[in-house]
Amino acid sequence: MNRVITISRQFGSGGRTIGKEVAARLGIPCYDSELILKIAEKSGLSKEYIESYGEHTPSSSWWGNILADRDYNGHSIRDDLWRVQHDIITELAEKESCVIVGRCADYILKDTADCLTVFIHASLEKRAERIVRLYGESDEKPEKRLLDKDKRRKSYYQFYTDSEWGNAANYHIALDSGELGIGRCVSIIADLYEK
Amino acid sequence: MNRVITISRQFGSGGRTIGKEVAARLGIPCYDSELILKIAEKSGLSKEYIESYGEHTPSSSWWGNILADRDYNGHSIRDDLWRVQHDIITELAEKESCVIVGRCADYILKDTADCLTVFIHASLEKRAERIVRLYGESDEKPEKRLLDKDKRRKSYYQFYTDSEWGNAANYHIALDSGELGIGRCVSIIADLYEK
Repeated sequence: MNRVITISRQFGSGGRTIGKEVAARLGIPCYDSELILKIAEKSGLSKEYIESYGEHTPSSSWWGNILADRDYNGHSIRDDLWRVQHDIITELAEKESCVIVGRCADYILKDTADCLTVFIHASLEKRAERIVRLYGESDEKPEKRLLDKDKRRKSYYQFYTDSEWGNAANYHIALDSGELGIGRCVSIIADLYEK
Repeated sequence: MNRVITISRQFGSGGRTIGKEVAARLGIPCYDSELILKIAEKSGLSKEYIESYGEHTPSSSWWGNILADRDYNGHSIRDDLWRVQHDIITELAEKESCVIVGRCADYILKDTADCLTVFIHASLEKRAERIVRLYGESDEKPEKRLLDKDKRRKSYYQFYTDSEWGNAANYHIALDSGELGIGRCVSIIADLYEK
C-alpha cells in the first residue's frame, strides 16, 4: 500500500512549504496547487471557482454560507466539487506515495490509505509576520485575514468530515512551526515517514 | 533560564511513561506522583484527597462539580489546592530543568519558564488495551473509564486555565502514542529538547 503524508494547516503556518520540503527530501510528489489543476480538468469547473471554493466557504459567516446556494434537495455545486476532490485524492493515493496538503485528505483517505496525518499551526503573531513577509500588506489587518481563513477552513472541514479541525486527537502529529521552525518540522515528519 | 518539558495527556495514552523515559534520557527529574507528595506536604491536605481532586473534578458531571462545595465567595478547597500546585510547579521550574506531567503545568509556566509543551493522545481502542494491560479489568468498561477521565481532565483544565485541553494549537507538539509508539515519542521529544 502506498504511504501518504497528509498535512492540514492553519493559514500562514508554513504547512504548504513544509509539505513541499518533506516531499523533496523523500523524493515523492507533493499535491497542492497541482491538485487544483487536476480537479479543474476533471470537473470542468473553472480554476478561479475552485480556488475560491475548494477548501473553504466563501465568506466567514460560518454554516450559513455552506448551506447557501443549495437546490431543493440541499445539493450544491460545492458538493460536486467535494466529490471530485474526493475521487482525485483517492486515485492519487492509489497511484503513488505522496504528500497532500489540505483538502481534507486525512479524512478522505482514512480507510483506504496508509497515512501519516499532520497538523501544522503557529501563533497568530508568527503567522501574521509570515503572511506579511510572503504576500505583502493588504487593507485588512493580517490578524483579521488569518482568523477569517482559519474559520472558513474549520467550517468546511467540519461540514464535510463531521470531525474537529485542529483537535490534536485527530492527527498522528501536530507541530507548532513558529516555535519549532520550518526545518525542524520537516525533519521530524520525514524521519517519521522513513523509519 | 531552566527548560521544562510539560506533558499533558489523555488517560491511558502512556504520557506519564513517556515523561519518565524522556527525563531519564535527558538526565533531569520527572515530577508526577512525586509532585503529589510535595503538594501534600506543603498544603497539609491528605494524600488521598489530593489524589482524587488534584487534577480533575471528582465526578463526570462537568461544571456542576467544579462549582460545588464553594463557600459564599465562590471559593473552594480545590482552589486552595490549585494555588498550592501553582506555587510548587513555579518553584520546581525555577529550581531546575525538569519534566512535569499533567497538572496544567503548561499553563502555569507559560510566562515564567522556557517550556516545550507536549500533548500525548491515542485512540480509544489503543488506550483501552493499555489500561486493561496495566491496571487490569474493572466492573466498568475500559472505554467508559477513559471517556470519564478525559472529561474530568478537560473540565478541570478549562475551568482553571480558560483554554482548551487537547486543542493542537495550545501545544508545541502533539503526538499519537498509539500509532507512533512510546519509544518514537520519547525520541522526538528528547531530540527537540536537546537541539
